[in-house]
Amino acid sequence: MAFISPSRRLRRTPFSQGVEAAGVKAYTVYNHMLLPTVFESIEADYHHLKNHVQVWDVSVERQVELRGPDAAKLMQMLTPRDLRGMLPGRCFYVPIVDETGGMLNDPVAVKLAEDRWWISIADSDLLLWVKGIANGYRLDVLVDEPDVSPLAVQGPKADDLVARVFGDAVREIRFFRFGIFEFEGRDLAIARSGYSKQGGYEIYVSGSDIAMPLWDTLFAAGADLNVRAGCPNAIERIEGGLLSYGNDMTDDNTPHECGLGRFCDTQTAIGCIGRDALLRVAKEGPVQQIRAIAIDGDAVPTCDRAWPLFADGRRVGQVTSAMWSPDYATNVAIGMVRMTHWDSGTALEVETPDGMRGAVVQPGFWL
Amino acid sequence: MAFISPSRRLRRTPFSQGVEAAGVKAYTVYNHMLLPTVFESIEADYHHLKNHVQVWDVSVERQVELRGPDAAKLMQMLTPRDLRGMLPGRCFYVPIVDETGGMLNDPVAVKLAEDRWWISIADSDLLLWVKGIANGYRLDVLVDEPDVSPLAVQGPKADDLVARVFGDAVREIRFFRFGIFEFEGRDLAIARSGYSKQGGYEIYVSGSDIAMPLWDTLFAAGADLNVRAGCPNAIERIEGGLLSYGNDMTDDNTPHECGLGRFCDTQTAIGCIGRDALLRVAKEGPVQQIRAIAIDGDAVPTCDRAWPLFADGRRVGQVTSAMWSPDYATNVAIGMVRMTHWDSGTALEVETPDGMRGAVVQPGFWL
Repeated sequence: MAFISPSRRLRRTPFSQGVEAAGVKAYTVYNHMLLPTVFESIEADYHHLKNHVQVWDVSVERQVELRGPDAAKLMQMLTPRDLRGMLPGRCFYVPIVDETGGMLNDPVAVKLAEDRWWISIADSDLLLWVKGIANGYRLDVLVDEPDVSPLAVQGPKADDLVARVFGDAVREIRFFRFGIFEFEGRDLAIARSGYSKQGGYEIYVSGSDIAMPLWDTLFAAGADLNVRAGCPNAIERIEGGLLSYGNDMTDDNTPHECGLGRFCDTQTAIGCIGRDALLRVAKEGPVQQIRAIAIDGDAVPTCDRAWPLFADGRRVGQVTSAMWSPDYATNVAIGMVRMTHWDSGTALEVETPDGMRGAVVQPGFWL
Repeated sequence: MAFISPSRRLRRTPFSQGVEAAGVKAYTVYNHMLLPTVFESIEADYHHLKNHVQVWDVSVERQVELRGPDAAKLMQMLTPRDLRGMLPGRCFYVPIVDETGGMLNDPVAVKLAEDRWWISIADSDLLLWVKGIANGYRLDVLVDEPDVSPLAVQGPKADDLVARVFGDAVREIRFFRFGIFEFEGRDLAIARSGYSKQGGYEIYVSGSDIAMPLWDTLFAAGADLNVRAGCPNAIERIEGGLLSYGNDMTDDNTPHECGLGRFCDTQTAIGCIGRDALLRVAKEGPVQQIRAIAIDGDAVPTCDRAWPLFADGRRVGQVTSAMWSPDYATNVAIGMVRMTHWDSGTALEVETPDGMRGAVVQPGFWL
């Protein structure tokens, strides 16, 4: 494995000091910022995440803030999900599409108030698209990246840990809702959300100055819970079918191809820039779609590029994420498969760097 | 140093196979793609670059292609540089600014024809800004990322190597011009340009299928020239004052702050989105500006964040790139300094991770 060369352009986060002290071994780069990928080992981190509680520096989920009278109008222009019924205090997973219906990002929209939103983004400079649209349509809205860095607390003991620091009221937060809680005199949004299936919270840390104090407070409070520094886990997120923008989907794909049709209200999302392009695919369905795929044999090599999927020698799709799963004793994978071969149980072949292997379309993801 | 975790999202390039075979040791991530940073060592790579010839995989300079009747109009909307006199066959370094005059990218614009342009980008998803503007202003233009991957040939022997493969006519290409040359039946644009001060070319390789054949041909042709795989060199680019977007400037900075005022024709660049915001700074000048800075003492640690600059205990700027230069026997650095302290010879102090050091504003860059 090669090293990563540090530079200011690969931005550190307000928690980097804690991440380094915890012995981070590897990073990826996400939104021009460092995202830890390994602490002890991917497998050890995986088992720990499923049994205890981890604190994740996910500052890379940068916020695009919309403020002003046209904020809600702009937010609806960005996504085919109908936002009319969304109340302040809610988080919505929103596909963001361009005028062709191609995915530009798959963020979580956080509605702070009618005229104030955060878009908690996946890995693309969505800020530039939103600023371009706001400028071109002459909307009355400010678009910016505020000093907000999410810190996730994930794992079966996440409720206990966060309650110790913020009080038992956090236990009442429902899935994809958020409440405002105080830390060192600062009001922080805490949502029940996160990029794992183990449960937990994302704390939107406003102000870099309180980042390390909060990090240290969580670790001090959780010593007997076996709290550790962690990060999104490559195995667990595939088991759970959590897609990764740039890995499992790109701007070539529509939300429907990504299995996100349930987040598209194409008929009623009036104003969405990609609406016209998506009307037909919403009606007729996509010709390829994301599937859970099991790959035969022992642990697959690192999936650092698309692996072609074949049936009877004909290309029918590709695998874009794959890892050996200790808990399911198989290679778990995410792929895009053509409709002729996407039914559960279909036997395929996948071309990996160490040769062809059998693969089977699954009825759903593992978790 | 930490490892980098491979994934499809950190895109490989059409030359990755060659880069790996050449023994790449470290990468950075640039436009969601792998950019080599070290082969033998940064110092060994530096000496080799200055004496021989290197082939660089700079596929990360992704192209934003503009095609259609409004292509030239859109290009002028993006930049305060007056493009009216630019003929096809020319390359222009163009600051790209938003409506506040903040830098969004500092690419090279390549004019293929009146209605067809490439923007060879630095590290930000400029595609999203350009698409947003084209959509918002309802321009008649297609905006896309084509399958074009630049390969740079840099160093004092670059002319000899490229002439062996493409013929002596490449020697006639003038600085920041390009010509069209054939390789395996494909027409390729070859420009005299590149991110070093050692001279050389950038070959815009159209079509991933001919990437490795061209790579192999260059290495076969240059064996007696001591050709090696290389990459932009952190020491050489600071000596030469080549700025790095994300390191030395961000969207907080105007082009004038970055010393790019000579590329701004703010009076005449009618249509530029940031023109109004830049008129005042163009007239009065910026209050801070990029400077070459020498830092005292032996080799500085890795500059992975902004280092504050002080004078008499007052903050007057920051250093954002710094390396020990073997040839100049000093630490060479790039910083942003307030006008009160930016004159050549001004003594400052810089706060590095291993303590305060003396620093002196230089009359200009070293190369």
